[in-house]
Amino acid sequence: MKRTKKERQNQLLETIEETPFVTDEELAEKFNVSIQTIRLDRLELSIPELRERIRLVAKKQFNKVKALDPEEVIGEVVELNLDDEAISILDIGAEHVFARTGIARGHHLFAQANSLAVAVINDEMALTAKAEITFKNQVHQGDRVMAKAKVTRAEREFTIVEVNSYVKRQQVFRGVFMMYRSRPQKKSKISNP
Amino acid sequence: MKRTKKERQNQLLETIEETPFVTDEELAEKFNVSIQTIRLDRLELSIPELRERIRLVAKKQFNKVKALDPEEVIGEVVELNLDDEAISILDIGAEHVFARTGIARGHHLFAQANSLAVAVINDEMALTAKAEITFKNQVHQGDRVMAKAKVTRAEREFTIVEVNSYVKRQQVFRGVFMMYRSRPQKKSKISNP
Repeated sequence: MKRTKKERQNQLLETIEETPFVTDEELAEKFNVSIQTIRLDRLELSIPELRERIRLVAKKQFNKVKALDPEEVIGEVVELNLDDEAISILDIGAEHVFARTGIARGHHLFAQANSLAVAVINDEMALTAKAEITFKNQVHQGDRVMAKAKVTRAEREFTIVEVNSYVKRQQVFRGVFMMYRSRPQKKSKISNP
Repeated sequence: MKRTKKERQNQLLETIEETPFVTDEELAEKFNVSIQTIRLDRLELSIPELRERIRLVAKKQFNKVKALDPEEVIGEVVELNLDDEAISILDIGAEHVFARTGIARGHHLFAQANSLAVAVINDEMALTAKAEITFKNQVHQGDRVMAKAKVTRAEREFTIVEVNSYVKRQQVFRGVFMMYRSRPQKKSKISNP
């Protein structure tokens, strides 16, 4: 069904409101128009490009981080509810990949996930004790990795944080982190949602 | 027992021959003299400082690395026997620690260990599938971390590499890495030593 320009732009606004990290490519596909059309729509509607939208959202989360300096988080934190859940975005550049294969090096995905696991802790200090990690699919230069951290258990002495990372909808990484924190928790367990 | 200077210098030469990565501090303690005396001894004997000794040994290992570009290894590889074992050294600088605590960030210890686990593989390509890691003790700025990798199992499809990292004699990190390689191995199992 062919939409009018007005209809498309209204739906475009709604879509970006609901899913702020959608790319121009994904929008073009969704609305069955060219990427150039999407860019012109965004210009007319004064919607900043994706990179800028991420930066604006990340800026709002910046001061929530407690357990490390915000600039020490690897990737941009776009959502953060302390002791509950957090999301960060890392764009894979040339500096993150093996020269020979263009495949992202594991320690960058680990660093994104581990620093998010630290950032989600509502405490002045949090240290990683153990981690079990799985690299599920290869990540390449140009990919945008979205890491989602979830506190799944909070004992007196430690907190378990699960981090699952995705490129588009494909899972690329999973890590279960056991974190020590400086102040023991009162709650003995956080229920799973 | 007081040694003559000649005796001490002979024993110093032997000690550095046997344990090339010994520090001036450790030598001073061993021979019960000042660090300054050790430095003068090294000057007279034309023994380069530790940093330079590491660099010289690392240079010899440089061309042995197959599964990644040698400069992609995090740390200096000072020993490498492909599909068997490897050792690397990483000096923890300000860029490796949390600003607030001066404690080394986990992903740097992980990067040293993981890249050594890749480097030890005798293959054009090796990728990490899974890892179980433990941070056993805190590492601080100024510490020198020695990572020791050992191939403990080589199945057709994957190779298991265990990496244990130490600061002086204290273990600080342990990682068990399951690595995929591009060419399946013929040997079904490497015996443990």
